[in-house]
Amino acid sequence: MIKVIIIGSGNVAQHLINAFQTTQNSGHPIELVQVYARNKETLLHLVAPNKITTNYSDLQEAHLYILAVSDDALPEVSNALPFSNRLVAHTSGSAPITVLNDRNKRAVFYPLQTFTKNKAITFKTIPICLETENSADFETVKQIASLLSDQAIAINSQQRKALHVAAVFANNFTNHLYQLANAICQEHQVPFGILEPLIQETAQKIQHITPQQAQTGPAKRKDATTIEAHLEFLTDQNQQNIYTLLTQSIQKNGKKL
Amino acid sequence: MIKVIIIGSGNVAQHLINAFQTTQNSGHPIELVQVYARNKETLLHLVAPNKITTNYSDLQEAHLYILAVSDDALPEVSNALPFSNRLVAHTSGSAPITVLNDRNKRAVFYPLQTFTKNKAITFKTIPICLETENSADFETVKQIASLLSDQAIAINSQQRKALHVAAVFANNFTNHLYQLANAICQEHQVPFGILEPLIQETAQKIQHITPQQAQTGPAKRKDATTIEAHLEFLTDQNQQNIYTLLTQSIQKNGKKL
Repeated sequence: MIKVIIIGSGNVAQHLINAFQTTQNSGHPIELVQVYARNKETLLHLVAPNKITTNYSDLQEAHLYILAVSDDALPEVSNALPFSNRLVAHTSGSAPITVLNDRNKRAVFYPLQTFTKNKAITFKTIPICLETENSADFETVKQIASLLSDQAIAINSQQRKALHVAAVFANNFTNHLYQLANAICQEHQVPFGILEPLIQETAQKIQHITPQQAQTGPAKRKDATTIEAHLEFLTDQNQQNIYTLLTQSIQKNGKKL
Repeated sequence: MIKVIIIGSGNVAQHLINAFQTTQNSGHPIELVQVYARNKETLLHLVAPNKITTNYSDLQEAHLYILAVSDDALPEVSNALPFSNRLVAHTSGSAPITVLNDRNKRAVFYPLQTFTKNKAITFKTIPICLETENSADFETVKQIASLLSDQAIAINSQQRKALHVAAVFANNFTNHLYQLANAICQEHQVPFGILEPLIQETAQKIQHITPQQAQTGPAKRKDATTIEAHLEFLTDQNQQNIYTLLTQSIQKNGKKL
C-alpha cells in the first residue's frame, strides 16, 4: 500500500484529495493517510476529522508528501516539515524543484489543469508532470501519478516553465478573451451563449489540426475593410489595443518581430 | 416543399450544401434545387452535376437564394441575379443587409460557426442569425433555418456586428493564443498535446460559470513575481507584448481605461 499525505487545503489540494480518495475507494493500492491544513474546517466536507492535522509535528510516515500550497509558501512549508530524507513534492507549474528544503528528497507533482472550486473534474485525462531530484525516486512518483491519471509524464524544470507560460496563453488569456467577447455581447444586448458552440468548436478543432492550420478570420485573410470596421465598432480603448496587437500578431503568423 | 438555391462554392457554401442535402435526405420538406458556382469542378464531390450551374441566367425559381460568397463579392453577385422581388440572403457576419441589391427582398442567414474544410460539423447546434428586410419574409427564413438548426434566432444588423466582433475575440484571437502556446512548447521541446485537456476544460468551464468567475492565473491573483519570471522567460518581443497587454487587461478586470 502506497501512503500519501497532502499538505494544503486550497483549490489544488482539494482536487488532489478528492482524486486520491476516489482512487483509493475504487480499490487501488494507495492510501491518503493524512492531510495537513492550517484550519481544519476548510476540509471537513472532504476528509474525516481524524485524518486532518493542523500540526506539522503530528505528520505520519508516508511514501510521498505533496505540498499543494502557493508558490510563495513553499520555502516556509518545506522548512517546517519535522523530518528528513523523505520524498516531498510540490505541485507548482512555475517554482523550481530547488525551492524545496533539501533536507528531504525533492520532487515535483504538477497536474496541468485549471481547477475550479466546486466543479468536479476527471483526473484520468489530466497530464501530471513529474520530476525528481534523484532518479531513484522517479518510479515512486510515476507509480502514484499513474494511479490518478493516464498521462504521467517526465518533465524537467525548464520544460515545466515553458508549459506554465504556454498555459497562461492557452488558458488564462483565452478565458480573458471570452470575457471581452462577453462584454461586447452585453453592451449590444446579445446573449453571450450564442457564441458557445463557436467557442467549443474552436477548442476542439486543434485536436485534429494545428492552430496554424485552424486560423481563420479578417486578420488571417488580411481583410483591411472588416478590421477597420471592427476597430471603429469597439468603444473601449483597451479592447481596441488588444484587437490591434493580436491582429498584427496573426498577420506576422507567429514570426518574431 | 421549400426550395432553396445556394450561390457560392467556398467553405461556408459547401457546409451549407451539405447541411441542406442531409436535411433533405432525412425526409424534411426542403429541397436544394440548384447550386451556382463559377467553377463546376469545385462542387462535383458534393452535388450532382445537373444541379450545378455556372450561369446566372440558368437559375431556377426558389423560395430562398443564399449568397454564400465573400463580403467583397456580395454587391456584384446580388447585382448579377437576373430576377427581382425574390428572397435573397447573404451569410456574412459583418456585411449589412443593405449590401444586397434592393431589386430583391433582402435577408441575412448567418450561421455563427468556424468552418474548416473537410471537417464535418453538426449544424443542429449552430446558431443561425436571421434578419429580413420585410417582416413578412421572416417566417420563411426562420422555417428554413429551423430545419437545419435548433437555434434559429432573430438578430438585427447591429447585434450581428457585435456578435461578429465578439466572435473574432472568442474564436480567431483565441486560436492565435493556441498558436503562440504551441510555439512556446516547440521552442522548449514539449509536446503541445499536453495542453489539450487544459484547453478543452477552459472552453467547457464557461458553459457553467461566467468567464469572469472562471478567470485564474498570475495576472488575476496579481502575482508580480511569476509575471516577471514569465516575461523574462519569453524570448519573443511580440509574445512579451501580448503577455503584458493581456495581463494588464485582466488586472483591469474588463474596466475601461
